[in-house]
Amino acid sequence: MRPQALPLSVLEAQYRVDQFNAAYGDILDRGDYAAWVELFIEECLYKVIPRENHDAGLPLATMALESQGMLKDRAYGIVNTLFHAPYYQRHVIGVAQILNDNGIEIRATANYSVFRTKPGSVSEIYNVGRYLDIFIREGEGLKLKERVCVFDSEMILNSMIYPI
Amino acid sequence: MRPQALPLSVLEAQYRVDQFNAAYGDILDRGDYAAWVELFIEECLYKVIPRENHDAGLPLATMALESQGMLKDRAYGIVNTLFHAPYYQRHVIGVAQILNDNGIEIRATANYSVFRTKPGSVSEIYNVGRYLDIFIREGEGLKLKERVCVFDSEMILNSMIYPI
Amino acid sequence: MRPQALPLSVLEAQYRVDQFNAAYGDILDRGDYAAWVELFIEECLYKVIPRENHDAGLPLATMALESQGMLKDRAYGIVNTLFHAPYYQRHVIGVAQILNDNGIEIRATANYSVFRTKPGSVSEIYNVGRYLDIFIREGEGLKLKERVCVFDSEMILNSMIYPI
Repeated sequence: MRPQALPLSVLEAQYRVDQFNAAYGDILDRGDYAAWVELFIEECLYKVIPRENHDAGLPLATMALESQGMLKDRAYGIVNTLFHAPYYQRHVIGVAQILNDNGIEIRATANYSVFRTKPGSVSEIYNVGRYLDIFIREGEGLKLKERVCVFDSEMILNSMIYPI
Repeated sequence: MRPQALPLSVLEAQYRVDQFNAAYGDILDRGDYAAWVELFIEECLYKVIPRENHDAGLPLATMALESQGMLKDRAYGIVNTLFHAPYYQRHVIGVAQILNDNGIEIRATANYSVFRTKPGSVSEIYNVGRYLDIFIREGEGLKLKERVCVFDSEMILNSMIYPI
Repeated sequence: MRPQALPLSVLEAQYRVDQFNAAYGDILDRGDYAAWVELFIEECLYKVIPRENHDAGLPLATMALESQGMLKDRAYGIVNTLFHAPYYQRHVIGVAQILNDNGIEIRATANYSVFRTKPGSVSEIYNVGRYLDIFIREGEGLKLKERVCVFDSEMILNSMIYPI
């Protein structure tokens, strides 16, 4: 009587997206920004936007990078040119919901929490929100065509240096 | 040599419960209380109770709704009658543990964290705890027969308006 | 066209590790330290170490238990001899990444957040970081041969009594 109608392809897509997100968080938390750039395709969009602006259709974003080239610039800036006090990030990301999978593109969403730790301080909540994603299948893995990070607080602790 | 004894039905149930929880959090975080009501069956229980009371067998709960009708009333109240300062919620829910699955009912538990963001403020921890659930299979999906939210802090920041 | 090359054994290992981590967090959050000891094999390592020391190869750890016997001693100490103000813990653990699985040993990592609630207080972030694990297959389940908890803040709120 138990419904067994779940195709293996559904589990496969779920696995790939959850693994991608785990690797994504891990790469950022280790500060490997060169590897972060490689998680995207060339023509991509990476945006970090307050929920209020996103819901109201307002374009103002905290970070908006509209190609892999711009991501590379950002990664370079973090490592080489941006003057900033360093801090650790830690991502804890919920299980993703797959909204659509046509075999080529997967649209998905996942809730995330990012904790920040400054040297000599306790950990604090830095940014919580929701990823709105378009993944592209590449071989056995995925790459991001689009990741929009819609976060709840319009007030960010200091400025945002690292991607979310 | 690798143990492959895992039946596909186990993965299926795990998938359904984790997807349910992801959708549940998403629905509440979007403030779609009408959709939240539809996640339950008619004869249901939704309870939010401090861990101390739950462990001691004391009945006192922060919220206790004993039918889908009561959930509807609550949803109506949130939107139309309860006077309150609005805030955003964000759920990050851990992978569920399935305690029992008889093909009709699934008993499961999952740890959750809920972050709250008030307008113009930083995000803060609002409520962390454990869902104790009884799901009913309905077609290809699940509905809640019972969700008891056992939370760690008996001190809730202000009053609790939205479900957890 | 959809790549279906994912073997069921990959899903099985992923399931086992995520379930292990969910049970691990649950056991600690319920304060069942005797059960926690049983999650490890006899010759095991359990270590809690600040990220800074771990990254620099420095040995100084907050907790370092080098056999199941030492874990037992610790569990005994928590319940019977250590003088401490009690607090609740709540684990929310991300989906694991499996780094290697040779059929006997599984190497994996997962990000975790642990919230602490002291009696009469609100919940706070206690410890966030990353598990670095070596699991051993035992029958249909797993046991830990090694768990290193690498945490972001070198500043721990008071002293650490309970395992992470």
